Amino acid sequence: MSVAGMLREIAAVGADPTRGGFSRAGYSGADRELREWFTGHATARGLDLERDRNGTLWAWWNPGGSTQRAVITGSHLDSVPGGGGYDGPLGVASALAAVDLLRNRAVVPEHPIGIAVFPEEEGSRFGVACLGSRLMTGAITPERALALTDRDGDAFADVARRDGLDPAHLGPDPERLSRISSFVELHVEQGRGLIDLGEPVAIASSILGHGRWRVTVDGQGNHAGTTLMDDRRDPMVAAARMIVEIRDLARATPDARATIGRLEPVPGGTNVIASQVRFWIDIRHPDDLVTAALIAETRDRVLAAAVAEGCRSEVREESLSPTVDFDLGLRETLRGTLADAPELGTGAGHDAGVLATAVPTAMLFVRNPTGISHSPEELVEDADAELGAVALADVLQGLAAPPQTRRSTEHMMAR
Amino acid sequence: MSVAGMLREIAAVGADPTRGGFSRAGYSGADRELREWFTGHATARGLDLERDRNGTLWAWWNPGGSTQRAVITGSHLDSVPGGGGYDGPLGVASALAAVDLLRNRAVVPEHPIGIAVFPEEEGSRFGVACLGSRLMTGAITPERALALTDRDGDAFADVARRDGLDPAHLGPDPERLSRISSFVELHVEQGRGLIDLGEPVAIASSILGHGRWRVTVDGQGNHAGTTLMDDRRDPMVAAARMIVEIRDLARATPDARATIGRLEPVPGGTNVIASQVRFWIDIRHPDDLVTAALIAETRDRVLAAAVAEGCRSEVREESLSPTVDFDLGLRETLRGTLADAPELGTGAGHDAGVLATAVPTAMLFVRNPTGISHSPEELVEDADAELGAVALADVLQGLAAPPQTRRSTEHMMAR
Repeated sequence: MSVAGMLREIAAVGADPTRGGFSRAGYSGADRELREWFTGHATARGLDLERDRNGTLWAWWNPGGSTQRAVITGSHLDSVPGGGGYDGPLGVASALAAVDLLRNRAVVPEHPIGIAVFPEEEGSRFGVACLGSRLMTGAITPERALALTDRDGDAFADVARRDGLDPAHLGPDPERLSRISSFVELHVEQGRGLIDLGEPVAIASSILGHGRWRVTVDGQGNHAGTTLMDDRRDPMVAAARMIVEIRDLARATPDARATIGRLEPVPGGTNVIASQVRFWIDIRHPDDLVTAALIAETRDRVLAAAVAEGCRSEVREESLSPTVDFDLGLRETLRGTLADAPELGTGAGHDAGVLATAVPTAMLFVRNPTGISHSPEELVEDADAELGAVALADVLQGLAAPPQTRRSTEHMMAR
Repeated sequence: MSVAGMLREIAAVGADPTRGGFSRAGYSGADRELREWFTGHATARGLDLERDRNGTLWAWWNPGGSTQRAVITGSHLDSVPGGGGYDGPLGVASALAAVDLLRNRAVVPEHPIGIAVFPEEEGSRFGVACLGSRLMTGAITPERALALTDRDGDAFADVARRDGLDPAHLGPDPERLSRISSFVELHVEQGRGLIDLGEPVAIASSILGHGRWRVTVDGQGNHAGTTLMDDRRDPMVAAARMIVEIRDLARATPDARATIGRLEPVPGGTNVIASQVRFWIDIRHPDDLVTAALIAETRDRVLAAAVAEGCRSEVREESLSPTVDFDLGLRETLRGTLADAPELGTGAGHDAGVLATAVPTAMLFVRNPTGISHSPEELVEDADAELGAVALADVLQGLAAPPQTRRSTEHMMAR
């Protein structure tokens, strides 16, 4: 089945009639439905399925029977609220398609090939992106993860337990990591790099350093009609000043991005001065020292705006990831396999960026003709999706079935 | 039973563990529970209950049997999200207590006394405050009301039907209005007037003109990490600039208030540049011409901020109520009955303000020692609540049982 065909099978799962696109929060009903879709495809291919103690699904193709030097691909199935249909699922469907392609080529891998589906990659539910890979590598402690809560106040500990995980067994998994020789994640490009270059597939060079901070602004809730303007301590006005300040700061800092996409006034009534406003800042920069300086300056400006409006403010780090340069040796190997593919950096975070601290890691990007992501407008042309799967198959073949071990070479002539 | 005792009976209904205070949206489960509490009290007092076709509950004490020249009191039971426990319920409980007081005084009213409970006064669910009284007086057409939707996208037509109303029969009720000689609503004060005057009860003079406008700002949703700052059309930044502008404009306009208490980014993800931000402006001013100028200027500034950020904006009026001066004759009567009560204007809207266009209307305010309303900090001391009920009983007695008709005068000596 084509990559596009597989994605069409899940085109109704988590479709969001209000926002457009898809809302597939981690551990939601939509997320479970997507995992069932994946396990169905893995089972149909005779792959061995397991779910590890951090909630990551693994589908193994392992004709050689070795448990070492595994070559891993895969991505995630959850989405941001109102996101596109490719961010995550493209990498999972392409991994399944790559296995099909290798089998059509009669390739028999020497090393195990595994397809991983990481949970809560977007962090849309519990606020910390790449929660599964962070737990696996120890980038977040199980204690901190278990205490995270979603918008409804449900703790991750309870949600994980209801989903069949044992909260007592979450955490670093060095044994599993030690069996992985490389991880290659295929992902839709989330910018315009491949449009400008006129190419369908790129090799990733690096991921921008990025983090999330939660800002809480406390003022005085009161009646919108009876409270004089000069008597107010309105956290919405303070938050508005902060948002403009943070944007201006980012715009004045070359290569920086700062975004406020989520904001929640409490209580949120039209005729009520809010008592509290919470919002989240996403900051990214290639130079970790600049990121640190940006955050320090952001804290100062937030505090100043709060004081100017008679409010109190708190800025709390929810996650912080340094800039990741992908493994040089693995990139060299990929450049050898995909001679035409350019190298591109990205501002988006990925499980591959988290795993890069533990295993040699690389990424492939597939062209997005709108250049837009985290939006219903995100797009991949069917033909590009197939080219992406072929590139991934080539890479997996090079890593898991090096030429000297191949039992068949027909496809090499057919290419 | 004391007013405070009645309010204690409903202290758990709609209690909001997240925001604090109460969230008792119109037509919600909490709202139905409160209506059952009211009908229980009315039934226990032998009052005749009816629900009119616009959803207002009426409890009648009518020993004279006349259907004309009814004297109406009452208020509402719904709340803003995270509101106080007095805004609305105080007027309903005080009305019940006033009937008890009049019976203890052996007063037999010549004209019917009715206690009205108006639905969706806060407009917290469907966006239009005083929905019940607006429908009754024709201040909103049934067509427009039926098309209103709540945050979940449920239309008022469907919600009303599920609540037992016939959407085809909503609308102006001039026959019912023609049977009313006066309406007196008792309400917690929502400012500091009575604190400063050192009095427990005031007579209302006027309600500030007020209205609600819904602002929609459309930009370009995209990825927070991959989209350069200069490539963005971010509606959150545009909205933030608008909020600061609107506040500055209101602060520069004597006696004006402008509030943004509700704001909703779409899709609302941390790592997503919003594609749309919606927010609601509440504007109030005693001079309707100034209100109109304020709104015109607000529209200009909203448009300018949208254009500056590459966004589109729309400002739509959801409701607009001119300044209401309560009936001079009725206020004169109340001043005769309550010699010590000062007169106070208010910035808060009420069903009394809507009904003032159709029948002679007045209000009583009871002291709020925090001066804060639409917040869990709203408060009425038990002793003040009882003084309010006595004042309301005195007023109802004066209107429904004028001295020449009294069969008993003992209480006059006992006062």
